[in-house]
Amino acid sequence: MATPHPFYPVDLSLPHYVPSTLHFTEVLGYFGVAVGLVTLVVGLIVQRTKPCLSVADRLVVLWCCISGLTHIVLEGYYVINHRTLAGLSTPLADIWKEYALADSRYLINDANVLGVEIITTFLEGPAMLFTAHCILNRSPLRYPLQLIVSLGQLYGSLVYMFGMAYDGWQYMTPQPYYYYFYFWGMNSPWLLVPLLLIVQAWRVVLRHAKVYHQVQARNALKKSH
Amino acid sequence: MATPHPFYPVDLSLPHYVPSTLHFTEVLGYFGVAVGLVTLVVGLIVQRTKPCLSVADRLVVLWCCISGLTHIVLEGYYVINHRTLAGLSTPLADIWKEYALADSRYLINDANVLGVEIITTFLEGPAMLFTAHCILNRSPLRYPLQLIVSLGQLYGSLVYMFGMAYDGWQYMTPQPYYYYFYFWGMNSPWLLVPLLLIVQAWRVVLRHAKVYHQVQARNALKKSH
Repeated sequence: MATPHPFYPVDLSLPHYVPSTLHFTEVLGYFGVAVGLVTLVVGLIVQRTKPCLSVADRLVVLWCCISGLTHIVLEGYYVINHRTLAGLSTPLADIWKEYALADSRYLINDANVLGVEIITTFLEGPAMLFTAHCILNRSPLRYPLQLIVSLGQLYGSLVYMFGMAYDGWQYMTPQPYYYYFYFWGMNSPWLLVPLLLIVQAWRVVLRHAKVYHQVQARNALKKSH
Repeated sequence: MATPHPFYPVDLSLPHYVPSTLHFTEVLGYFGVAVGLVTLVVGLIVQRTKPCLSVADRLVVLWCCISGLTHIVLEGYYVINHRTLAGLSTPLADIWKEYALADSRYLINDANVLGVEIITTFLEGPAMLFTAHCILNRSPLRYPLQLIVSLGQLYGSLVYMFGMAYDGWQYMTPQPYYYYFYFWGMNSPWLLVPLLLIVQAWRVVLRHAKVYHQVQARNALKKSH
């Protein structure tokens, strides 16, 4: 007989399920330590190489690195192992099995989740890291890139969270903890931060366009004289 | 007993199903006439008001209008009536019942399809028409807008088509006609055209950013002298 599993709906078929070896505080701890380490390393690199970078830009660089690495490492792990995830016993698999208490679609090859995660892992992840690179090097690519990458993230979050809100609550352990802390707490940063970064980038890209138009108009005027 | 329906999978429960009153050639005809009318009206308006607009820009305006109106009228009709669509007998419902032969998820409140269609109807649709307006008025908003709207369309198409390709073939009548003509034929324009428009807009937005940087650098130089 298959090991009973803790996920919802209770009749979910997961014959390959193996319980986590980690307690959920350990899972959260690993995640927290990883985020802390990235923060430390990125902070040190920025301080050493670009000491004049504004605090706002430092925060965006940090977000791009944490978000990009989460996409590539954590979500990439899901994409690669989505068929067997419930049966794996690695720290990354344990993070997913913990999150799956709030959304078991991650364990059942759900096309909606997988489609969004493939785009997130292979397009958004590398593009996020490249955006950080462009910010550090004051590249003209920065704001156009920030605009499209954040828009992609926002679109992904909207589709994912809508899917859950529309008919997905059956996949969530019915306790407020999973609803507030996992569903909203873990996902809302990928709604709110992209929204802020879209607004910022949109305003700058528009200023670029307006200045470009002014320069063009001035040059046309010069030629006509 | 409920009316038997022609959709796949054959055991799909659609107790409210009512057969189409139109033959599928009539359905395609209505769609074709609508597209033709929009082409004619847009063409006449552009010729009257902006006779100097390039052929390329005319084609983009036309695409924005056809695509935007399809989003708002046809896809909006689905979003508003998605719960009862199989039981409705209007020309718009008949178009959806015809398309549903290639993807019956449109008749069963599928969260994946609905989430993408809500974003498409309420955000992409109006934004497409506004993009057409910006092209006609040579607004600096044009390329940034074209970039983000086309990116949204591309993301939506990718998620929708991935969902179908991953585990959705069960929802399609198993005949090459539906696969090639409806799935690929009807959807690939919303992959290819956005991709082209993204490339075009990306190059222009980047040129804007570079010129802006040059102007900033020149001004900084002037100040330092």
